[in-house]
Amino acid sequence: MSDLNDYLESNRDRFERELFEFLRIPSVSTDPTHRDDVRRCARWLAEALAEAGLQEAEVVDTEGHPIVLAEHVVDPDAPTLLVYGHYDVQPVDPLELWESPPFEPTLRDGRLYARGATDDKGQVHLHLKAVESRLRSGSDLPVNLKFVLEGEEEVGSEHLLGFVEENADRLACDAVLISDTNMFSPDHPSITVGLRGMVYVEFSVTGPAGDLHSGSYGGAVVNPLNALASMVAALHDPERRITIPGFYDDVRPMSEAERASLEELPFDEERYRREEVGAPALGGEAGRSTLERIWYRPTLDVNGIVGGFTGEGAKTVLPSEARAKISCRLVPDQDPGEIQEALIRYVESLAPEEVRVEAVPHHSAEPWAADPEGPLFEAASEAMAGAFGRRPVFIREGGTIPLVPRFERHLGAPVLLLGFGLPGSNMHAPNEWLDREMYHRGIATVARLYDEIAERGV
Amino acid sequence: MSDLNDYLESNRDRFERELFEFLRIPSVSTDPTHRDDVRRCARWLAEALAEAGLQEAEVVDTEGHPIVLAEHVVDPDAPTLLVYGHYDVQPVDPLELWESPPFEPTLRDGRLYARGATDDKGQVHLHLKAVESRLRSGSDLPVNLKFVLEGEEEVGSEHLLGFVEENADRLACDAVLISDTNMFSPDHPSITVGLRGMVYVEFSVTGPAGDLHSGSYGGAVVNPLNALASMVAALHDPERRITIPGFYDDVRPMSEAERASLEELPFDEERYRREEVGAPALGGEAGRSTLERIWYRPTLDVNGIVGGFTGEGAKTVLPSEARAKISCRLVPDQDPGEIQEALIRYVESLAPEEVRVEAVPHHSAEPWAADPEGPLFEAASEAMAGAFGRRPVFIREGGTIPLVPRFERHLGAPVLLLGFGLPGSNMHAPNEWLDREMYHRGIATVARLYDEIAERGV
Repeated sequence: MSDLNDYLESNRDRFERELFEFLRIPSVSTDPTHRDDVRRCARWLAEALAEAGLQEAEVVDTEGHPIVLAEHVVDPDAPTLLVYGHYDVQPVDPLELWESPPFEPTLRDGRLYARGATDDKGQVHLHLKAVESRLRSGSDLPVNLKFVLEGEEEVGSEHLLGFVEENADRLACDAVLISDTNMFSPDHPSITVGLRGMVYVEFSVTGPAGDLHSGSYGGAVVNPLNALASMVAALHDPERRITIPGFYDDVRPMSEAERASLEELPFDEERYRREEVGAPALGGEAGRSTLERIWYRPTLDVNGIVGGFTGEGAKTVLPSEARAKISCRLVPDQDPGEIQEALIRYVESLAPEEVRVEAVPHHSAEPWAADPEGPLFEAASEAMAGAFGRRPVFIREGGTIPLVPRFERHLGAPVLLLGFGLPGSNMHAPNEWLDREMYHRGIATVARLYDEIAERGV
Repeated sequence: MSDLNDYLESNRDRFERELFEFLRIPSVSTDPTHRDDVRRCARWLAEALAEAGLQEAEVVDTEGHPIVLAEHVVDPDAPTLLVYGHYDVQPVDPLELWESPPFEPTLRDGRLYARGATDDKGQVHLHLKAVESRLRSGSDLPVNLKFVLEGEEEVGSEHLLGFVEENADRLACDAVLISDTNMFSPDHPSITVGLRGMVYVEFSVTGPAGDLHSGSYGGAVVNPLNALASMVAALHDPERRITIPGFYDDVRPMSEAERASLEELPFDEERYRREEVGAPALGGEAGRSTLERIWYRPTLDVNGIVGGFTGEGAKTVLPSEARAKISCRLVPDQDPGEIQEALIRYVESLAPEEVRVEAVPHHSAEPWAADPEGPLFEAASEAMAGAFGRRPVFIREGGTIPLVPRFERHLGAPVLLLGFGLPGSNMHAPNEWLDREMYHRGIATVARLYDEIAERGV
């Protein structure tokens, strides 16, 4: 271990220089003008994996952006870990809000500022440096490793899922490691053990065949905007519980252990309200704490409404149509298919007879929760304890990573979410950053994790 | 009277030719490229008034489009009538939906098709031909006449109101005649005896300081779109009555005579639903008929809502802000100022503590109802009976004409709304038309009205 620590210590600056090189490539997957940059980034990554010492590394073309694959086999009987991550990044707009250019990585106050620093290039890179540190420092690598790194995560992973299904044998593993999440705080190394799922449905409510004059017709015609507002309002009760029949039937209650763990976390609601949210007050389902609402309870939010006249000034229109995009975040063991059907059926039942309702489902995703009792999570906890000087907390994430339950299903292996981002790191926003120290601790964590898994199994 | 009838009969074709000349001028007031056309139209109109035989006619400049004034004094002791109308027209978009070009008047199936045919050039022109027919046919004109014809009605009458206030002496009269409304049906000559007023307020509801991720924050933050929907929904009860405290306090109940008159009208709700509205069903305040809802009851309609993501596809945003434009149509004796204040106060009271509400009032207008018991309405009824062969029905209009109550206030004279448009005449839409026969009956009605008023007074 002292060889490893020496290696990590003496290579800190080089690791950062290489990460900066990676971050300089503007691999914005959604922007066609960056198509070549995305490909260049994939090639850079495959070369970096080979330089780290992995036996095989290649760029695999898809009909979209390439997938980077790598593999290193030390012993067919040793555990095999599959590292998933993505090398594409979000767009940078609005550019004028960046204090330093998004693709010129800059170190300020202990933070590495650049687009992709946390999401997810920085967290991919720490895995490369972890394996390099084992292969180059003379300490053996006790596990087999595979990497599958995509360039389409920010645009829906369109080609990855088919690739995983078609290459399940090639990607066979004992556990999947993903570093694409945040820690609870700088003082709390964290393992994310739950994600919410989602259903997303767009509704249109149509009344009159065309827009009408609100004077000549107003009062005799049910206004689709008023109708839609009433329908949306009826989806929650005064306690802010969701009224869809059966909606909570399959919600798994918090265990005593989960509640105890959650209550131990030093969560400052007032700081969260003021610094992260900025609303006059927090609010949600009655009788639940903020963390419980985000981590353990499903939601129903309107993501967009539009109808009638929305420009400057006043126009007295009684619109023909109103539209709403409505999504629910789901928790185990809610089934997205059942919830989607119940949502649509219930919204339709709320519509007055004077309007027609049309529902168009968008994507949906399963919720996920890990079983953190087994040896994999013990291994991860030990590795973190070694790198951070304290054992991690188990946290959840209110958002959705559709790939996680799918990896588990297609590969038959548990997923371990080891995130080294910090709250407020501006993923998807200007001035994204990665804490420099967390990056290095991430490398140390992963470099230790191999031994812990080799020792305990998964 | 037979001289008059002969004159009207023998000049039918010429009247139509002159109307077509008037309609050919594209006096679109909202379009700066038609600014010279609007001015040309004003000059054409002043000349036509002079040719009709009026003693004085002039174009008066304003900071916007000109006002056309005319005057003819027969006897300082005779009643003086002020004719108000407008010579500007709506834009013609979408042009491709017109079956004949909007500024090439065309006669088809007994209808005169052109932009402005009904709204309001055709109805202004019939007043010119009525006075001409009295001045040129040898039958004396028994009243004094004034004309005030504006070119900004379709853009809010910005300069007319100041002009009326500043020139109240010059415009002094015993009654105001306006032909800018519709008849109940071709078989029902009509006098419009009520108009609804209006208040219009834009509300914004703000929650978080910026847009948030609906996964990471959803459930712990009150969504301004959900909050707005609940606030809008709470503005009506299940009977579709408006819940604003005191809202109905000043609503004048229908009189027995009004109810009897309304029930006598052969209103076909199913035809109206199918041909005019096109909704699955009509609907409104419980226990009221469609005509009562439009003519005698106030409304609250959302004219526009917008918030969150409204483009194609799905985006999981929890928006910072949601906005709604809300208007109420008012009936006598509701006061726009009081209703506006009550609306704002009530919406604010409905907002949960987790959001901020901002209210921006737009324009408002008073409701109006005539007292149809006096000699003015008897005179109008007799004139219509003479021209149509049956006495008119008294109808109301659900829309708002802000000028009407203001004329009454500033000039201290009652307003008579004598409309010769027919339902479905496409005012503000492609293929606007005026029924040819109604145009000629309008001329005959007004030509008779002078005598009836001279005989009865107002």
